[in-house]
Amino acid sequence: MTTDQPQVSFQTSPERYRHWRLDLSNSAETGVAYLRLDIAEDGGLVPGYELKMNSYDLGVDIELYDATQRLRFEHPEVRAVVMTSAKDRNFCAGANIRMLAQSSHPWKVNFCKFTNETRNGMEDATANSGQTYLAAVNGTAAGGGYELALACERILLIDDNSSAVSLPEVPLLGVLPGTGGLTRVTDKRKVRKDRADVFATKPEGVRGKQAVEWKLVDEVIPKRQWDEAVAERAAAAAAESRRPADAQGVTLPPLQPVHTENEIRYRHVTATLDREQGQVEITVAGPEGDVPDTAERVHELGADFWPLAMTRELDDLILWLRANELELGTWVIRTKGDVEDALAFERVIADYSGSDWLVNEIRHYYKRVLKRLDVTSRSLIALIEPGSCFAGALLELALACDRQYMLDGFLEEEAEEGEPAQIVLSGSNFGVFPMSNGLSRLGSRFYGDDDYLAKLRQETGRRLQAAEAMEFGLVTDAPDDIDWEDEIRIMLEERRSLSPDALTGMEANHRFVGPETMESRIFSRLTAWQNWIFVRPNASGPEGALRRYGTGRRAEFDRKRV
Amino acid sequence: MTTDQPQVSFQTSPERYRHWRLDLSNSAETGVAYLRLDIAEDGGLVPGYELKMNSYDLGVDIELYDATQRLRFEHPEVRAVVMTSAKDRNFCAGANIRMLAQSSHPWKVNFCKFTNETRNGMEDATANSGQTYLAAVNGTAAGGGYELALACERILLIDDNSSAVSLPEVPLLGVLPGTGGLTRVTDKRKVRKDRADVFATKPEGVRGKQAVEWKLVDEVIPKRQWDEAVAERAAAAAAESRRPADAQGVTLPPLQPVHTENEIRYRHVTATLDREQGQVEITVAGPEGDVPDTAERVHELGADFWPLAMTRELDDLILWLRANELELGTWVIRTKGDVEDALAFERVIADYSGSDWLVNEIRHYYKRVLKRLDVTSRSLIALIEPGSCFAGALLELALACDRQYMLDGFLEEEAEEGEPAQIVLSGSNFGVFPMSNGLSRLGSRFYGDDDYLAKLRQETGRRLQAAEAMEFGLVTDAPDDIDWEDEIRIMLEERRSLSPDALTGMEANHRFVGPETMESRIFSRLTAWQNWIFVRPNASGPEGALRRYGTGRRAEFDRKRV
Repeated sequence: MTTDQPQVSFQTSPERYRHWRLDLSNSAETGVAYLRLDIAEDGGLVPGYELKMNSYDLGVDIELYDATQRLRFEHPEVRAVVMTSAKDRNFCAGANIRMLAQSSHPWKVNFCKFTNETRNGMEDATANSGQTYLAAVNGTAAGGGYELALACERILLIDDNSSAVSLPEVPLLGVLPGTGGLTRVTDKRKVRKDRADVFATKPEGVRGKQAVEWKLVDEVIPKRQWDEAVAERAAAAAAESRRPADAQGVTLPPLQPVHTENEIRYRHVTATLDREQGQVEITVAGPEGDVPDTAERVHELGADFWPLAMTRELDDLILWLRANELELGTWVIRTKGDVEDALAFERVIADYSGSDWLVNEIRHYYKRVLKRLDVTSRSLIALIEPGSCFAGALLELALACDRQYMLDGFLEEEAEEGEPAQIVLSGSNFGVFPMSNGLSRLGSRFYGDDDYLAKLRQETGRRLQAAEAMEFGLVTDAPDDIDWEDEIRIMLEERRSLSPDALTGMEANHRFVGPETMESRIFSRLTAWQNWIFVRPNASGPEGALRRYGTGRRAEFDRKRV
Repeated sequence: MTTDQPQVSFQTSPERYRHWRLDLSNSAETGVAYLRLDIAEDGGLVPGYELKMNSYDLGVDIELYDATQRLRFEHPEVRAVVMTSAKDRNFCAGANIRMLAQSSHPWKVNFCKFTNETRNGMEDATANSGQTYLAAVNGTAAGGGYELALACERILLIDDNSSAVSLPEVPLLGVLPGTGGLTRVTDKRKVRKDRADVFATKPEGVRGKQAVEWKLVDEVIPKRQWDEAVAERAAAAAAESRRPADAQGVTLPPLQPVHTENEIRYRHVTATLDREQGQVEITVAGPEGDVPDTAERVHELGADFWPLAMTRELDDLILWLRANELELGTWVIRTKGDVEDALAFERVIADYSGSDWLVNEIRHYYKRVLKRLDVTSRSLIALIEPGSCFAGALLELALACDRQYMLDGFLEEEAEEGEPAQIVLSGSNFGVFPMSNGLSRLGSRFYGDDDYLAKLRQETGRRLQAAEAMEFGLVTDAPDDIDWEDEIRIMLEERRSLSPDALTGMEANHRFVGPETMESRIFSRLTAWQNWIFVRPNASGPEGALRRYGTGRRAEFDRKRV
């Protein structure tokens, strides 16, 4: 645990929200939910700042993430979500600047990563859940406030002669819009790059007709028609949705992990923290018990259905470790369970994700959690041992890792009963859970070799032991029982000896081969630049723009261009 | 001028090389040139380090760039270039570490940018010039040494039981391979990502059969067959080339710019340095005199042919300003000349670049210089005034800028004779000079709107004055004579007030919309991460890996993962 920041929990629920109001009062009839930002200024996650002007910090975003998840799982009736503000003339002022100025570099970077993931999740709901987000910008949307709107499918701006959209980070703070703003303006909204340049250097932003002409918003609506027009646009979006009528949502109960000094234990996922070695050993337990044979049975099980339960736990664990355990730089990932059971459960996903809304949600949720792993700045090492169940969807966990080690045979001290370690490919490994660059993890692994991917597809369903897994290129190495312990120990020790920063940069390059998408560009071109800017004195030094903001004193810049 | 570094000139010629030996002794018969790295250890550009182990600094790379340019223009007979080492058992140890350790952050970043551009240029020669680079790795190739080989089309490695290829930056120096290494290993060589991870964390690298199996090299060749096999592979590559037989090269004479305190003057390009305002005014003069009516006439003119002469000057100026004038953060770009003359000259390029090797070279050279502008970390502002000639290929200069301002009418003090400012689209603006993301600059400007591009194509050849240029979205603003001076002055003042770092990050995002290629990924995902790592204490602090390397003391790392 680091001492310079509080422990952060990512669990919450609507009745505990301090900053958002989730209005479902008419959603059964209209299919529309309203999500209203209503920041409690004294509700900052960390002491030292007030959340003025509807500005946010990590705590606000944790609630937003919770709301987006519950809307997807608990509210099948919601087909459109209107994101708006409960404050007068102020949609959202973005990330709180005093919070940024007082935060450590890791905190800022982790905060931006999580907020990015949540915004990507809103776009994912729009694209894959039939739950379309609309921004009803009923006041000024500045910086992260406008970026929140950018993550919505449509942006409606109130025409009241004062409300504007803006990205004032460059001119006011000397940093970039950190939540995808620059990329979404050009790539999603398709704003001309010279206009994007003018916009992002203009602290007061753009409003009215010009905002529409520049494509920064879709529509400006006079104040007196506002509520009605917003409702109409939301209804139109809802009408396009394929979400089912009369479906019953699935409640997401609290997860209740047990935290002890060196362990975090959920029902299906366990993490052992080794502070001395700087690593975490994560074990995901495969499914047990009867396989649901109908979609109805999945609905009955709800949050207890293993794929959903495991995914939620893994999600929470990843977020916890990223925020709270910065010095545990290596994550060793194992699975434990029966290969056939794992395949049987994932067959349920494959069979019903096209026809059942809940199973579809589970599929996309697991996809998003795997994407979190892909952008996690920790070294990820999969250990595939006897008794593991890296099959199909669970094999994606191993493929997301930087390396995969598979034991060939049995360790001496173990009873040589049961079967040796095996992995199994399934349809899940060929595009069901794409990475943010649009490729499957196998497609990334064998980039540019479609023939080989086609060949691998023919191995679907076969149990591959170590020798075959090596031959097919699915694991990095497969030491036998004599070498296993030494090789793994030495590999982990070597990893630990390397520069954490260099590893972060290296892994971010190796994990994303080939094509980029808007989403992956946000994490590469945009975020990498932002991270650089965050550590430069021109932003974060004592005379930097971020630290001087609001003091009445101008920042002093080193004018050298780098 | 900054005081902490020497002034750097990018001009040289083979007889002045200290580090490379360009062997053309058999090229007339074989079509093969040998480029041998033979570092003079005492020939560092800056005092304070010795270039041991065939390691390089900026001075070495300036010679390499010169060699690659001369090979293209002066040696049409060269169809394959063998890049190898003149030292025994040592191909190249990469960038000199003491040089990196003692260099300022801007120096390191600028050095990496230039070396990247040169390596991209080698790939461009291979792809577009019929001049294929082969790496004959006759000793160990470490770090930047291996990255040099990676920029070649094929990599041959000597099999002598000791020579290996390696990327030891992460384990030894705590930084990334800074010249495209990680990206080329995965995207070009298609090395599996887990193997890439092992490789990039293994200081001793990989040799022999494993290097082939992992696709790190194409072939290993026993020592006794080495010379013969290399010559054979080079001959095979040369045989594929479409470069003409019996062509005469064009000599590239020294440029001889005149440097005075506030001006750099070439024949066609002039730069006025305004240190107080932190800006440079660059004026490119259009062509004068008779338009060559045959390819033969272009050959007679040679380096005096305006498109080549202007491109060489612009290239040299960009490199000079980037290296030597870090505090001049805004470049104001103008052209001066006759629109019809500019179009007439570029018609020569259009007419002959498909059939004449020299004209083809000029086209691709101008393309590369425009790409340099695209990745230049300065604010680029085009001013389009009466008497300018932003037409076709020269219009690309304006389109490469962050903003374009066009005067509507005439300034009062000017005689209202002649014509108002105009721009002209030509075929050159629709893909002849692609950016590194594969799009034309118009394609980037109107990203995702192919219909609009098709519409613009119909305007080809028309003189567009300010009002039409605005209407077509080709300029950012078109103030009239009353507003022009104030608007431009205020715009430049505002630009100057912004954080140089934030501008660099913002511009790097806005200029590259949409798709990424291997080349653009090197500048985005890889370089942006590298820049971040370079400024982190884990690399560059007093206990950082870069500073501690070779001292016998281990680096001390802040273990927090960011």
